[in-house]
Amino acid sequence: MTYCLGMLLDDGLVMVADTRTNAGVDNVSSYRKLHCLIEAPGREIHVATSGNLSASQSALERLAAGADPGRSLAAAGSMFEIAERVGDALRQANRATAELLAPAMKGTSSMLLGGRIGDEPPRLFLIYPEGNFIACRPEAPFFQIGETKYGRPILDRVIRRETPLPAAVKTALLSFDSAMRSNLSVARPLDLIVMPATPEPTLIKRIEADDQYFNALSARWSRALNEAAAAMPDPDFLAPGGLPQATPLVARLRN
Amino acid sequence: MTYCLGMLLDDGLVMVADTRTNAGVDNVSSYRKLHCLIEAPGREIHVATSGNLSASQSALERLAAGADPGRSLAAAGSMFEIAERVGDALRQANRATAELLAPAMKGTSSMLLGGRIGDEPPRLFLIYPEGNFIACRPEAPFFQIGETKYGRPILDRVIRRETPLPAAVKTALLSFDSAMRSNLSVARPLDLIVMPATPEPTLIKRIEADDQYFNALSARWSRALNEAAAAMPDPDFLAPGGLPQATPLVARLRN
Repeated sequence: MTYCLGMLLDDGLVMVADTRTNAGVDNVSSYRKLHCLIEAPGREIHVATSGNLSASQSALERLAAGADPGRSLAAAGSMFEIAERVGDALRQANRATAELLAPAMKGTSSMLLGGRIGDEPPRLFLIYPEGNFIACRPEAPFFQIGETKYGRPILDRVIRRETPLPAAVKTALLSFDSAMRSNLSVARPLDLIVMPATPEPTLIKRIEADDQYFNALSARWSRALNEAAAAMPDPDFLAPGGLPQATPLVARLRN
Repeated sequence: MTYCLGMLLDDGLVMVADTRTNAGVDNVSSYRKLHCLIEAPGREIHVATSGNLSASQSALERLAAGADPGRSLAAAGSMFEIAERVGDALRQANRATAELLAPAMKGTSSMLLGGRIGDEPPRLFLIYPEGNFIACRPEAPFFQIGETKYGRPILDRVIRRETPLPAAVKTALLSFDSAMRSNLSVARPLDLIVMPATPEPTLIKRIEADDQYFNALSARWSRALNEAAAAMPDPDFLAPGGLPQATPLVARLRN
């Protein structure tokens, strides 16, 4: 598996991907999943990939080769057109890969596509394995692909379109921390891009397995969660010792 | 889907299940998933079911009917034997249901089985759809089935064999709160049993959609998570405004 997260906020775009690839537990490796498709004046495009690694790589190669010059990413007039072309490449790669595999094997990949053209605000798309896609909107300001569930509760509770970039990056890393702690298929290094809505340059950073900020964040977060849970009131239907109280609350319900 | 959780702690057994059943988003209903199989002097057995509802119900009916008198739950000499008989009923029900359905449809159910015989400590088993099973052990003091991932991070961080029952029940409800908040296939009412390791009676309780303790817990937990996240240090590689800093930390890594 893998876990990729994209956030489109008022202040800019954040994308994070881990690097864990596994074909069974005895074939675990590390591959970059967050790739820069184009970095040129006025045009900067990144994708994060999840799913079958050979399908992901095939889609990226098809995009880099740019078979049809009229359909190149460099020539696309909008982020929407870029999403169409990336979706086409992904669909072709997925179909070609799935044909080789038994039906029960997952031969497809999905993508998060983020970037900007000119001085427009950044945009973020979720590209499905079939090549269709949806754009991120402020009401639901993040997309996840891959091993999404462990890291979702913190996002649902904290991330809003107004969340500033430092808080968003911090929360993204907490989300990855939850996924990595509970699931072996997500692991550091993490790759991160932060593209401010203002025309500042994009931050591109790799968070290694020994990253001091991440280690401190993870340890503090675990402590904070334990303290927060301990501070919650105990159930009013249990006595302090944990034994059932003989009150109407413990009526033995059956239905 | 559904979410069921069982914890086997030094102080006793906790089992929680939600009641949401759905066959598509336009066919959502509420069914009890936590059932008392036997409640008799010196013998108390509960199961929580997840998966195909017709398979679950079929397994429960087979157990209640007790086709083979020599293999009844009431006659079983140990929790292990009870797990074998429940596993047999579940396997038969799953096979019968799966035969009716297209291969792509999930026609199977799994179970958590908890209870005690005589004055032995409670035991907890996870019964797989094929009828085989594993027993819960102190090193990993909980089992989940169904929609497990959203609610897992808090368990991984908080639950230990030494966790007292009130704290365990509270943490179980926080785990369900995370699952319900992020996924429509898990919902109240929740059913809860708490079986102390001491020979006190078992608490059996239903937590309704308007349960005041749960509502207060959920609101406080959401606030506590937001406060805890806000108190975490911002990434040291981002300036307070969120723009990339021109320091060696922002080296543009590619590999």
